Amino acid sequence: MSTTTGTATKWVYTFGAGKAEGAARLRNLLGGKGANLAEMSSLGLPVPPGFTLTTEVCTAFYANQNKYPDGLEDQVQSALAQVAAHVGRRFGDPASPLLLSIRSGARTSMPGMMDTVLNLGLNDETTAGLAAESGDARFAYDSYRRFIQMYCDVVLGVEHYLFEDALEEHKNGLGITQDTDLGEEDWRELVETYKEIVQRALGEPFPQDVHAQLWGAIGAVFGSWESARARTYRRIHTIPDEWGTAVNVQAMVFGNMGEDSATGVAFTRNPSTGDNEFYGEYLINAQGEDVVAGIRTPQYLTRAARERATDDKPSLEETMPLVFAELCDIYHRLEAHYHDMQDIEFTVEKGKLWMLQTRAGKRTTKAALKIAVDMAREGLIDRTEAVARIDPASLDQLLHPSLDPAAPRKVLTKGLPASPGAATGEVVFTPEKAEQRAALGQSVILVRTETSPEDIHGMHVAAGILTSRGGMTSHAAVVARGMGRPCVSGAGAVRIDYKAGIFIVDGETVREGDMITLDGGSGEVFLGTVPTVRPELSGDFGELMGWADTMRTLKVRANAETPEDARTARQFGAQGIGLCRTEHMFFNADRIIAVREMILAADEAGRRAALARILPMQRDDFTSLFEIMSGLPVTIRLLDPPLHEFLPKSDVEFAQVAAALKCDVEKVHARAHELEESNPMLGHRGARLGISYPEIYEMQARAIFEAAIAAEKSSGEPVHPEIMVPLIATGKELSILKVRIVGVAEAVAKETGARLTYQIGTMIELPRAALRAGEIAQEAEFFSFGTNDLTQTTYGISRDDSGSFLKDYLKAGIFVQDPFVSLDQEGVGELVRMAVERGRKTRPDLKLGICGEHGGDPASVKFCHDIGLDYVSCSPFRVPIARLAAAHAALAVEQEKD
Amino acid sequence: MSTTTGTATKWVYTFGAGKAEGAARLRNLLGGKGANLAEMSSLGLPVPPGFTLTTEVCTAFYANQNKYPDGLEDQVQSALAQVAAHVGRRFGDPASPLLLSIRSGARTSMPGMMDTVLNLGLNDETTAGLAAESGDARFAYDSYRRFIQMYCDVVLGVEHYLFEDALEEHKNGLGITQDTDLGEEDWRELVETYKEIVQRALGEPFPQDVHAQLWGAIGAVFGSWESARARTYRRIHTIPDEWGTAVNVQAMVFGNMGEDSATGVAFTRNPSTGDNEFYGEYLINAQGEDVVAGIRTPQYLTRAARERATDDKPSLEETMPLVFAELCDIYHRLEAHYHDMQDIEFTVEKGKLWMLQTRAGKRTTKAALKIAVDMAREGLIDRTEAVARIDPASLDQLLHPSLDPAAPRKVLTKGLPASPGAATGEVVFTPEKAEQRAALGQSVILVRTETSPEDIHGMHVAAGILTSRGGMTSHAAVVARGMGRPCVSGAGAVRIDYKAGIFIVDGETVREGDMITLDGGSGEVFLGTVPTVRPELSGDFGELMGWADTMRTLKVRANAETPEDARTARQFGAQGIGLCRTEHMFFNADRIIAVREMILAADEAGRRAALARILPMQRDDFTSLFEIMSGLPVTIRLLDPPLHEFLPKSDVEFAQVAAALKCDVEKVHARAHELEESNPMLGHRGARLGISYPEIYEMQARAIFEAAIAAEKSSGEPVHPEIMVPLIATGKELSILKVRIVGVAEAVAKETGARLTYQIGTMIELPRAALRAGEIAQEAEFFSFGTNDLTQTTYGISRDDSGSFLKDYLKAGIFVQDPFVSLDQEGVGELVRMAVERGRKTRPDLKLGICGEHGGDPASVKFCHDIGLDYVSCSPFRVPIARLAAAHAALAVEQEKD
Repeated sequence: MSTTTGTATKWVYTFGAGKAEGAARLRNLLGGKGANLAEMSSLGLPVPPGFTLTTEVCTAFYANQNKYPDGLEDQVQSALAQVAAHVGRRFGDPASPLLLSIRSGARTSMPGMMDTVLNLGLNDETTAGLAAESGDARFAYDSYRRFIQMYCDVVLGVEHYLFEDALEEHKNGLGITQDTDLGEEDWRELVETYKEIVQRALGEPFPQDVHAQLWGAIGAVFGSWESARARTYRRIHTIPDEWGTAVNVQAMVFGNMGEDSATGVAFTRNPSTGDNEFYGEYLINAQGEDVVAGIRTPQYLTRAARERATDDKPSLEETMPLVFAELCDIYHRLEAHYHDMQDIEFTVEKGKLWMLQTRAGKRTTKAALKIAVDMAREGLIDRTEAVARIDPASLDQLLHPSLDPAAPRKVLTKGLPASPGAATGEVVFTPEKAEQRAALGQSVILVRTETSPEDIHGMHVAAGILTSRGGMTSHAAVVARGMGRPCVSGAGAVRIDYKAGIFIVDGETVREGDMITLDGGSGEVFLGTVPTVRPELSGDFGELMGWADTMRTLKVRANAETPEDARTARQFGAQGIGLCRTEHMFFNADRIIAVREMILAADEAGRRAALARILPMQRDDFTSLFEIMSGLPVTIRLLDPPLHEFLPKSDVEFAQVAAALKCDVEKVHARAHELEESNPMLGHRGARLGISYPEIYEMQARAIFEAAIAAEKSSGEPVHPEIMVPLIATGKELSILKVRIVGVAEAVAKETGARLTYQIGTMIELPRAALRAGEIAQEAEFFSFGTNDLTQTTYGISRDDSGSFLKDYLKAGIFVQDPFVSLDQEGVGELVRMAVERGRKTRPDLKLGICGEHGGDPASVKFCHDIGLDYVSCSPFRVPIARLAAAHAALAVEQEKD
Repeated sequence: MSTTTGTATKWVYTFGAGKAEGAARLRNLLGGKGANLAEMSSLGLPVPPGFTLTTEVCTAFYANQNKYPDGLEDQVQSALAQVAAHVGRRFGDPASPLLLSIRSGARTSMPGMMDTVLNLGLNDETTAGLAAESGDARFAYDSYRRFIQMYCDVVLGVEHYLFEDALEEHKNGLGITQDTDLGEEDWRELVETYKEIVQRALGEPFPQDVHAQLWGAIGAVFGSWESARARTYRRIHTIPDEWGTAVNVQAMVFGNMGEDSATGVAFTRNPSTGDNEFYGEYLINAQGEDVVAGIRTPQYLTRAARERATDDKPSLEETMPLVFAELCDIYHRLEAHYHDMQDIEFTVEKGKLWMLQTRAGKRTTKAALKIAVDMAREGLIDRTEAVARIDPASLDQLLHPSLDPAAPRKVLTKGLPASPGAATGEVVFTPEKAEQRAALGQSVILVRTETSPEDIHGMHVAAGILTSRGGMTSHAAVVARGMGRPCVSGAGAVRIDYKAGIFIVDGETVREGDMITLDGGSGEVFLGTVPTVRPELSGDFGELMGWADTMRTLKVRANAETPEDARTARQFGAQGIGLCRTEHMFFNADRIIAVREMILAADEAGRRAALARILPMQRDDFTSLFEIMSGLPVTIRLLDPPLHEFLPKSDVEFAQVAAALKCDVEKVHARAHELEESNPMLGHRGARLGISYPEIYEMQARAIFEAAIAAEKSSGEPVHPEIMVPLIATGKELSILKVRIVGVAEAVAKETGARLTYQIGTMIELPRAALRAGEIAQEAEFFSFGTNDLTQTTYGISRDDSGSFLKDYLKAGIFVQDPFVSLDQEGVGELVRMAVERGRKTRPDLKLGICGEHGGDPASVKFCHDIGLDYVSCSPFRVPIARLAAAHAALAVEQEKD
């Protein structure tokens, strides 16, 4: 889409001297930088005059075989004349040369792009003129050599090390090490050397024609849009190719023109804490790049900050009080205008303040929360805006302990950041050892090739988990996130030798008992102890979450089965349990033997005998959950995983079970062998167990109903359990199982005289269940989308095995995101959408939720909101994220309506 | 839907004396038996008069709380009067009693239903009358006691053993063993005893009111519609409950009224061979049940049959030449009328012939083929009808050797009938041993717990395969069917002890080297040798298949990769190869080492070196296939299974690979361990291998292109390979791989100067691929539905593991059929249908086929035709079945149009 004036397209927008043709709202056309320069100019702020070549020039350039559109050259000439007029200098004028900065500027910041060429317009003649005019030849030739190197690097493609080597050689010849020790003559000589380097490298001299310089720089910016780096960056961040970049051409101002010149960067609030204080640093007699380069240590802007840091170098407030006052005024105006904390760049040229950039400032999550809440209180923004400002995913930082950023550390290796938070502990290799050591009060890190459900007791007592195999959604990762334990998974360089009780990583041997530290947020593993910082859920956090809750319609529940998890979930604001995985209750040491007896029994009678022993334990589990979640719904999933997950592993365990069953150990082995499966994920599990072994689900249903009665009695609140049957593929399966569950309910009601209210529903976790949702909804009172398994089956990818090719897939751009982390909306999502429609068509009041890992992923939460689910359920530690994401989703829908 | 006359519904349809209110076309209303009795009566054939209570009576009865509809009783009375008038007897008349038979008759024959009550209308008085009238009191009282027992059994629910015991006791008292030795007085006494038994059992006497008897029998027939047996039968055969059954009430005729009476059953053609000869048997002085009971040996109908069998008991042709002539005339009229071979029942009462039933006769597949072809030649039916008459699935019988039905046998155990045909051989437990023994010319049966791709060489040389685990679609079953090898899978009672070289089944030990015989059609396993019969594909078969080919539009290809299979496929009429599984070519002993080197190589260079050695072998494989299938399309699937399937298993094999790779054996073990997967079905396989290891698909593409050039040269025919990428889930995967394959094609074309024409397409075997078919079709030139994997992922069922619950699911009616055998049309089928629509929308000329096991299942073939696929591809031995099924599908669509 082109903006046209009459018939001619406007390709160039000027700004400066209190006026601008552009504005902040033209960001798509002018890029972020150009739009904000125009906006500041219109506000009357001191912006060096300049102009912006629009993103449409870029688009037209590529659409038209790399030719600039008609009219562009004229418009640039005319804009350039306007800039010259404002500044009172002419481009290429040897007496009083206009110098330019050229900067790219896409809609969003793109580190993959060419950035800046400064001092453009210098050549042999104008440099001499600049020397004369400024009375500072050293400054002029220093500027010239900087320009040659920068222009060669980004426009002409001459390697920068050639220039650096020449500079080094020159200094060596003089026996000095600092650039500042070089004088005018040195720079003059080096300029000649630099020009020779260019001649040698290119076979032609450094361009002396300033217009050729300008078009060369413009061409380089547009060319950089199609550079490999920029394309990769766009692909990763899904930025469309057709957005294009703008080019900003602006009169140079110099912070390095003496002691009354300076340059600095600032934030209008503290980006780390969010405190409402002017924050930043500056350097006297320096250009912007010097602040970033870190050769000189920058000084504080405010006296308060300087004193707090007990720094003795004077602040800007002290060195240039007038400039400081003007800057303070400007920052207040910018915040008032943009309604957000700004990140600004400025330069002081001979006592005159110039604003070079303003943009929304990046900030930590903690700061973001404080700023949003403060600004809402200050009336700068409303609460809706405050809530919208916080990225839900960023809350994760606040919900787990983190490594002290200041502490020293030695990186041992890196794996996948599977579950955030930091943990330090001694290395253990077995869950048993983990329990022993933890019982003694020792913090432990459980190190395993990969974990299995049987390791859960060990994971529970561990401070963190490290695995050498498995992806972001491996067993270890999922369980760890569920428990809020830091976890690094798939650290492929780690070689574990269980027998020797060591692991080796890149030649380094770590023994059982050695201390290591995990950063589950970065995937890094450190040798020894790195101090951590505890999360502080400040009042701002609670306040903002409260506002968010009033804005959302989607409910948020938690996946939890232990009392501890349930309590955490409630504290984090969960509105019920969306998924209680009963099998997790089977692994406790005191009941696994009974479970094994049940599985390995030769017949139904044997199974029933074992189940009778498990019943009271399950009932107590449920009673406790119902009490903790009193008044809130609790969805309990009947036994799901393949039975062989519960099988004994060691000879001792086999012997135990054989003794308990009073049968030959060989028979137990034979039965265990029978239960082995090639693809357990697609095996005899879920509802299929319920069909084959009715007594298992009957026991579980009885435990639920009896627990509901007990919890009602103890809490005085009614309990409404939701009984969920997993892995349904057909309506018939559910109808058969429902009859049995209802039968148990009737029996319990008759025995106790109690009235039971409950719902029976199903997971939708197989493509067929989604397709047949209409039929299944005839039986199901609720659906809960098990999007982990639905993703596995829809994609045909086992998440335990995906680690081997996931990286290749992300690298090749086949996956933009791991589909187990963020719901694949166009594939898996279509099935979910289909199931929602078909299910509700059969049963308009069907309750709909999601209980896969995706329930805690903001993009997926938005999807759930958009398709009309009633709730999402996620791990307790992600409940706040889901609450905020749900509010965002509701706000986005509101906005789309506007 | 009711048939109404004025306002009153007609519930009863009469027939007899050359007239009938019903007709054959009213089968739904009158049931099969009633409709045909009416039809015969209208044809003027001698049918004992009677009437039919319609199926609507049954429906109305159940719809109206088990009450008969108004008007029924009057209509029955009036029909009864009409029967009495025709026969010249009255119901309940002591002087000349009318006796009735009562038979149920649903639309289709239902063995689960009550069948017949004979001699109804006898009581103390009418029996005495019958004795007087017939002059044969023994006959009268024998008939009475038979009636009492039959009526008590099916109507009153008095157990029949009570009567049998009484009869036995009576005979014991007399010291005789044969019923025929009992005289009139014995039967009179026994009738009294029987009546006492009834009185004791029911507390009331046997009903003497003949009308009560009649309504009792009618009620019992209708009641039997809702019996547990009938309901189970209906569920299994998907017969709707609302069809209901009819009741036929017919005047009794007696074949046991002396030497001029007889009863018999006949087929109008030989049901075993199909020969056009009158075929059947009869008994003088007997009732129908005596023929079936087998107490007396029946005699042949024709003299020719008797002489052929060198039987000396006279044929009907000889004993009753007039009756025989009339019967021959009738059978010709029935065939001419029904245009099909008939199964008839008749009775001769005192020299008078009565027709009791006619219906289409059951026949063997061989006979069905001959009869259909003969009748088409005779002009009785047209070719379309001939083709429509043959059940495609039944052809399976003809395509494999079968056990000689006459041979003695000892059943060892029973498993699943996984791949039809019979085989005898000595037991071996390893593929290696199978090869050794087969090389010596010994027929072997490979016995394994289950098979894996590495066993293929052993399966290939085996005469049959027996596994103790796995279902109808386990690896063993699928591969065996593909090879046309008989296979019994999942014989759970078989316990294999590989070390000892034995298997034990129900206490019987079978050693390596012992002979066993499999019947893959029944799942039975026999000890020792049972002689087999070779299939004979007669001229009729070929002729009918030729007719079928002219009627179908769906093409039929075969799944084949060996030259032997390809040749078989061509002989069976395959129109190309729809699936060549390249991995099957990797298991040969001479190349598995190179394959293992490739997999276990540390880097790409190592893999490329190994692949370079595999390339010429693959090229030769493809050249040979292209030559055999010259002129026909060949679809080659690139490597699909997870790499670890190829890994070494034994220490010797590991050492071999380590030596070849010149590396430490520990390293090889470590790499092998790395490749292990939890759910290999959902793991690193298919296109995922292609993405991670580009060099594998590049080698395969090169082999294909070079082979195409070689085969064009040798055969002079152009070769158009179709290259198929497996396990695609996203368009992006295919687009990346396509670029690489095209690159190889261009390279080969450049090197050789040859022009290559080929297509690149994909399997649709993941739900996501079906959903995203529109996007994938942008790259794919063809889709082949891999419905095996699509069923696995859509249902979330691993076919290797489904054996453990499949039986439970079939029993519970959750599966009507194993979804791996017949396509789940409403679940998996919806995805296929969706993919067809979406794919064709993007690319209207997209070629569409199916290459899962379902390609050889007639119901699935019809589905493929209906949704507009271009071809199905199945195992070579099922090609004729698919061809015929495709013709049926086309004919069905034609019919639906009419």
